[in-house]
Amino acid sequence: MHCCASKASTFEADDTRLRMSEKKRVCIVGSGNWGSAIAKIIGNNVVAMSDQFHTEVRMWVFEEMINGRKLTEIINQDHENVKYLPGIKLPTNVVAIPDVKESAKDADIFVFVLPHQFMRNVCKQLQGGVKPTAVGISLIKGFDVKEGGGILLITTVVREVLNIPCASLMGANIANEVASENYCEATIGCKDPKNGQLLKTLFQTKYFRIVISEDEDTVEVCGALKNIVAVGAGFADGLGFGDNTKAAVIRLGLMEMVNFCEVFYPGSQQATFLESCGIADLVTTCYGGRNRKVAEAFVKTGKSIEVLENEMLNGQKLQGPPTAYEVNYMLKSKMMEDRFPLFTAIHKICKGELKPDQFIECLKNHPEHM
Amino acid sequence: MHCCASKASTFEADDTRLRMSEKKRVCIVGSGNWGSAIAKIIGNNVVAMSDQFHTEVRMWVFEEMINGRKLTEIINQDHENVKYLPGIKLPTNVVAIPDVKESAKDADIFVFVLPHQFMRNVCKQLQGGVKPTAVGISLIKGFDVKEGGGILLITTVVREVLNIPCASLMGANIANEVASENYCEATIGCKDPKNGQLLKTLFQTKYFRIVISEDEDTVEVCGALKNIVAVGAGFADGLGFGDNTKAAVIRLGLMEMVNFCEVFYPGSQQATFLESCGIADLVTTCYGGRNRKVAEAFVKTGKSIEVLENEMLNGQKLQGPPTAYEVNYMLKSKMMEDRFPLFTAIHKICKGELKPDQFIECLKNHPEHM
Repeated sequence: MHCCASKASTFEADDTRLRMSEKKRVCIVGSGNWGSAIAKIIGNNVVAMSDQFHTEVRMWVFEEMINGRKLTEIINQDHENVKYLPGIKLPTNVVAIPDVKESAKDADIFVFVLPHQFMRNVCKQLQGGVKPTAVGISLIKGFDVKEGGGILLITTVVREVLNIPCASLMGANIANEVASENYCEATIGCKDPKNGQLLKTLFQTKYFRIVISEDEDTVEVCGALKNIVAVGAGFADGLGFGDNTKAAVIRLGLMEMVNFCEVFYPGSQQATFLESCGIADLVTTCYGGRNRKVAEAFVKTGKSIEVLENEMLNGQKLQGPPTAYEVNYMLKSKMMEDRFPLFTAIHKICKGELKPDQFIECLKNHPEHM
Repeated sequence: MHCCASKASTFEADDTRLRMSEKKRVCIVGSGNWGSAIAKIIGNNVVAMSDQFHTEVRMWVFEEMINGRKLTEIINQDHENVKYLPGIKLPTNVVAIPDVKESAKDADIFVFVLPHQFMRNVCKQLQGGVKPTAVGISLIKGFDVKEGGGILLITTVVREVLNIPCASLMGANIANEVASENYCEATIGCKDPKNGQLLKTLFQTKYFRIVISEDEDTVEVCGALKNIVAVGAGFADGLGFGDNTKAAVIRLGLMEMVNFCEVFYPGSQQATFLESCGIADLVTTCYGGRNRKVAEAFVKTGKSIEVLENEMLNGQKLQGPPTAYEVNYMLKSKMMEDRFPLFTAIHKICKGELKPDQFIECLKNHPEHM
C-alpha cells in the first residue's frame, strides 16, 4: 500500500507510474537462429500484454557486416535477421543493440540464447549492471566446462556471476519451425512458481505451448545429455541396425540420463523426463539432428569427427562428442563408468579408444537388464 | 521333503524323477511372424537350460496348405515357417502341432502370441484342460472387446477363462529383426516376482534383453494404446508438419496413455512408461509402423481407412482406429473426452466426424498446458 495524493488526477498519475514501474522490461541476450525465433514470440507477446510488459524488447546482437550494412541496422530498419533467420519478419518493437551492457539496461527479465562457449564472458560483462530483482532464463543447450574438467550448468554460471535466479527453457524446438508458427511444446524449468508463471506468460502462444516444471536442474541437463545419446543413435544407424536396436539405444540413453541426474542432481524426478525437454527433444534429436547424422557418417566412412565437422557442418562443432567427454570426466572421477556403459562407449568410440562395431557389445550387459 | 529308498541307485532315480517333474514344459499358442521369432528364442533357451525346462517346445499352428504340403509338416521336417518367417531356421526341438488342445497337454508355461480376435475362442478350447499350476504370458498387442462396448485386457481373458495367472511381454520388437538376432529390449509385466524371473529366464538372450516390471496392467495397456498415437503421428506427417509438431503429438499421446492408465488401471506407475513397452515401442511405431503410414495416406489422399487397408495392407486391418473407437467408448461413458483431446480427435477423424486439418487445433488447449 502507498499513500495517495489528495487530487484524483494526481492519484491516477501515481497509479500509472506505479504500474509503469511494475511493467517488466525484457532483454534478449543473443540473436542467432533460435534467438531470433524467440524474439518474434516475445516481441508479439509483450505488445499483446502491454499491461504487464514494456513493449520495447532489447536484443543484443553481435555486430557483423552483411553486404556492407551492419546487422543491427538491417534488423532495426528491415525487421529481419537476414543472416540467421532469413524470411521471417520480426516485430518492430524488437530493437537490435550491438552493446551488451546497453541492451541490458534496466532489464527485469534476461533471456540468454547464445552459443554456450560465449556465456561466461557475456555474464562477466553484465556483472554489476543488473537489477537485483531481475530474473534470467537460459535457452542454451549445453554445459559450461569447469576449469580442470567437469561440468557446470549454464544457469549456475548466471546465478553465480549475476546473482539473480535463472530458469531454463528446453524442448523439441527447431527454430525455423517455431518461427513458422508450427505447433510445438517446450518445458520451463523454474523452482520459483511465481517466476515460472511470469516466464510462461512471456513465452506461451497458441502454437508454442509451455509446461512449467519445478525440477529445474533436470530440465536443463536433459538439453545437454540428449546430444550424447544422439551420437549413439547415429552409430546404430551407421552400423546398419534397424528400428528395434535404435529404440533400445534411445531408451538406454534415456535411462542413463535419468541415472545421471539422480547421481549428480539429487531430487531429480522421473516425471520430468516425460516432458518436452525429455523424451520429445531426445527423440527428435535421435531421428533428425546433426549429431546423429555425423555419427552415422563417422561409422560409415571411418573419418574422424573433426574431418566430418569440416566436411558436413562447414566447420561448426558438434555438441555430442565434447559433452560425452565432459560427462566421462565426471563418471571416471566417481568410478562410475560401469553404471553408464552407453555414455562411456560413445565417448570411447569418439576418441578412437574403441571401434564403432563394439558399440552394441558394450550394451549387452547393461545394468538396466540385471 | 520326501522319503528316499534304501538303495543309492533308486534314490538317484527318484531324484531324477523329481527334477524331471519340476522341469517346465512350454507351449507356444500361435505361430505367425512374431510367434515364430519367439519360438526360435524359446527353443534355443530351453535346450541351454535343460535343467529347468523340458526341451520339447510345442507350438500350436493353425493348419494351412502351402504348395500341397501341410504347414505343420513343413515346420517339423524343414524347421522353417515358410509362410510367416521365411529364411529363418527354427530349432529342431520346436514341434508344430495342429490341434490346440494337444499342443497344450501338460504345459506349465503358455506363451500366447496370436491375433487378438482369436484369443477368446482359443482360451475356451483350452478351458478345463490346463494344469492349475500353469502360468501364461501374452505377447498380444491389443484389447479384447467387451460385449456391448469397452475393453478388456487379453491377460484378463486368460485369467478368467483358464483360471491361471498371466503376464505380458511388450516392447519395440519387430519380429524379423528379433529373428535376425539384432540387439533389442522387451518388458515383461508380471505382478508375481517369482513368475517374472522364470519368464525372464525363458525369454532373455544376449541380444534380446528383458526388464521385469511388476506394473503388469500398464505394460500391457501400452502395447494397445500406442497404435492410437501412431495414427496421430501419421496425421501430423500427412498434414506436412515437421519434427517439432510430431514430437509434440507423440509426447501428448504418451501423456494421455499415462492418464488413461491412472484413470482406468489405478496403481499404474509413470516409471513403466520409460521402459521398452512404453516410449521405445511408442516411438518406433510412430516413426515406422503401418498405423502411421496409412494415417499419413488418409490425410493426403482423402480415401477412407477401409479403402486404404485394402490398397496398402492387402486387406489386413489396422489396430489404431478400432482401438481409438473402443477407448473413446470408455471415455464417453465417463464423460472424459475433454481430458483426452488427442485420443478423441483421432477417433473422430477416423470416423469422418472431424476433418484431419482440425487435428492440431484440437491440441491447442490441451490440459497438459493449463
